[in-house]
Amino acid sequence: MTRNIKFTSPDTSIQETAKIMYENHLPSLLIEENGDTIGIVTYDDIALALTIYDQKITSPIKEIMSSPVVSVPSGTSILKAVELMLDKKIHKITIIDNGKSQGIISSSDLMVLFSMLSEEQLYGIFKSQISN
Amino acid sequence: MTRNIKFTSPDTSIQETAKIMYENHLPSLLIEENGDTIGIVTYDDIALALTIYDQKITSPIKEIMSSPVVSVPSGTSILKAVELMLDKKIHKITIIDNGKSQGIISSSDLMVLFSMLSEEQLYGIFKSQISN
Repeated sequence: MTRNIKFTSPDTSIQETAKIMYENHLPSLLIEENGDTIGIVTYDDIALALTIYDQKITSPIKEIMSSPVVSVPSGTSILKAVELMLDKKIHKITIIDNGKSQGIISSSDLMVLFSMLSEEQLYGIFKSQISN
Repeated sequence: MTRNIKFTSPDTSIQETAKIMYENHLPSLLIEENGDTIGIVTYDDIALALTIYDQKITSPIKEIMSSPVVSVPSGTSILKAVELMLDKKIHKITIIDNGKSQGIISSSDLMVLFSMLSEEQLYGIFKSQISN
């Protein structure tokens, strides 16, 4: 998983949210309120909001975020995370331990992982934990 | 690879492009001119254009498409396609045979593939051709 996560508040504008993502090379941003992770937003959400759902770039991100977030604890197996992504048709899962967001695992992360491994290594990986 | 591809012209508006993608459940759209595939656009491109690059939803898609497209022939190995995605930092590669776009292979497609396979099957897959 990537531990390169950032948070913003639910009242941040769509444009400001996109800027934070762009400047920090992040494909998604978590939305936090009172210390809780209440949502997640991706570039796909932003594109659809501005073209299909008549949102403005000044609209608050809470209007378009995915909420609640789909999350698993860091001890979850990678195979389980893959199954969850396919089942929910999502590309990102938030890793939450003890109520705190620790990171995000994405289909892109897994692509990188899979492509670097030999077939012997893959079986072990599918059984290993996300936090490794 | 997915053969569910669609084309639009370079003068289609950003909003109309997003609508075509949304209504057809496509994560990307190819841009065609005089029978040639001259570009590709994703939701990421659209989100950045509208929030960071001051484009309007009425701007023509040619202003923001990725061009030229990164393509390989259908006989290319999947391992090679994965390497190309990582090298170019892209999520989609267009499959072109004899000058005609046949399909798109994406990191999501590969995720689905990888997750369904046993470790014995994976080695074979990495060596097999995209068109299989």
